[in-house]
Amino acid sequence: MIPDGATTITHPHRVGFHETDAMGIVHHSNHLKFCENARVIWLETHDKSYSEWMEMGLHFAVTRVELDYRWSTRFDDILDVTTWLEWVRGASLAMGYEIKCQDQLVMTGRTEHVSVNSEGRIRRIPKEDRDRMRKSALSAVKAW
Amino acid sequence: MIPDGATTITHPHRVGFHETDAMGIVHHSNHLKFCENARVIWLETHDKSYSEWMEMGLHFAVTRVELDYRWSTRFDDILDVTTWLEWVRGASLAMGYEIKCQDQLVMTGRTEHVSVNSEGRIRRIPKEDRDRMRKSALSAVKAW
Amino acid sequence: MIPDGATTITHPHRVGFHETDAMGIVHHSNHLKFCENARVIWLETHDKSYSEWMEMGLHFAVTRVELDYRWSTRFDDILDVTTWLEWVRGASLAMGYEIKCQDQLVMTGRTEHVSVNSEGRIRRIPKEDRDRMRKSALSAVKAW
Amino acid sequence: MIPDGATTITHPHRVGFHETDAMGIVHHSNHLKFCENARVIWLETHDKSYSEWMEMGLHFAVTRVELDYRWSTRFDDILDVTTWLEWVRGASLAMGYEIKCQDQLVMTGRTEHVSVNSEGRIRRIPKEDRDRMRKSALSAVKAW
Repeated sequence: MIPDGATTITHPHRVGFHETDAMGIVHHSNHLKFCENARVIWLETHDKSYSEWMEMGLHFAVTRVELDYRWSTRFDDILDVTTWLEWVRGASLAMGYEIKCQDQLVMTGRTEHVSVNSEGRIRRIPKEDRDRMRKSALSAVKAW
Repeated sequence: MIPDGATTITHPHRVGFHETDAMGIVHHSNHLKFCENARVIWLETHDKSYSEWMEMGLHFAVTRVELDYRWSTRFDDILDVTTWLEWVRGASLAMGYEIKCQDQLVMTGRTEHVSVNSEGRIRRIPKEDRDRMRKSALSAVKAW
Repeated sequence: MIPDGATTITHPHRVGFHETDAMGIVHHSNHLKFCENARVIWLETHDKSYSEWMEMGLHFAVTRVELDYRWSTRFDDILDVTTWLEWVRGASLAMGYEIKCQDQLVMTGRTEHVSVNSEGRIRRIPKEDRDRMRKSALSAVKAW
Repeated sequence: MIPDGATTITHPHRVGFHETDAMGIVHHSNHLKFCENARVIWLETHDKSYSEWMEMGLHFAVTRVELDYRWSTRFDDILDVTTWLEWVRGASLAMGYEIKCQDQLVMTGRTEHVSVNSEGRIRRIPKEDRDRMRKSALSAVKAW
């Protein structure tokens, strides 16, 4: 699932009781929060922090979400949330996700984002930022 | 519980599946959201809408929460959330709450708020607003 | 977007303050909750209530989510959440969604579900239920 | 605030974007989730895990919440959530909380709980469990 050579981070998440529902499993809306938390850590680890992006006046608003749930998880399970940058264009980008619980695949997914200013209007990602992100996204391949 | 003569609104809330937890009941953090929704409707019904307050540059940030849970509720239960203004002072106010499910008392509570500007700094509630709110809070008594 | 002849329900949702994020807009994870609430109402209106399904020992666990966000919405906006049954098979079904705010398209989406018992094991939807659902899904066409 | 000799745990929580609201701060309902997560870690560290309690058929349902918010926090702030057991009785217990962000006091609070079985009916906490908990709650004092 994870593309060859993708630069990833893997972020552990321990399931809170408040994330479960009456079926006894993690409610499916929470996975979007786990993905968001992981995205923040990818940016901070391999690019620059989301706070720095916001100080530049740029936000990455979500335009599309595609999630496949493969396994349900429960209170106190430890999830490993892996994310990577799929692509970055003039004013948009996409991130991929894979969530595992021990060796079990829990979810795969993708989110797409548009870069907007604080008023929500589309604004291009500066070229030097895009170039840097593209390099970060594939550093493993390049290293190889 | 509801003080004599208090001006109330009662707002129905149908419990969503996403509001339940693995005990099969509504997770206790959601009651704060039900109270918030009801507060918004009280303001709009008996004072002015929260959007208008925000346009004046005033927000009512929560400073204290006190909730007593008397009965647990489940998916698809219909809750009646009643709220009223307990008091308003120079830069703060308190709201009271009672939640019922049919005739069963589910929760009683109070939230306290400080009035702040968009930067989060304390700002007085204009005197004419306070006077109007106090009258609204007790209109039932006055009518009597 | 809405397929010709689909049997729909449209459910109003007023955006709560707790549903917004620091960009000032509705956080994208909430749309899944709006869809879920609408789904419950579709079942109750055009089929049988989710509580009745659960009493039969059947749950519709989410296996896939696909959402396109077209417009951001804010505190106190009134959303109209429309949903319909796209298809039903032996042990799965799909629902479609369209969210509008006044005349503005806010979101389109689809969720897919598998029918499971209380232990989360796949269980077929009884044939008579599937037949009834298929009829409900297209009643508008049939009526015409 | 933290009682002398109380046995505590301190659990870091990094604020997610999904936990903020349109005022740009952490929505007040989330603090109850932070407290819950910390409570789970206290039990696991100083008593036995909540999963083990649940296997015994016991849950600690929340009956009362009292929170004082002293400072607002923002996206990406690191919170230190400290919790301790205040008391344990025949079928109930209370936990205390203090949340800090660096040296700034963010919140203080208490939750009260009743021990119930899986059907939600009150069930006593076995005497040996209560005795053990009371010892754990004060181990620091005892050690001294």
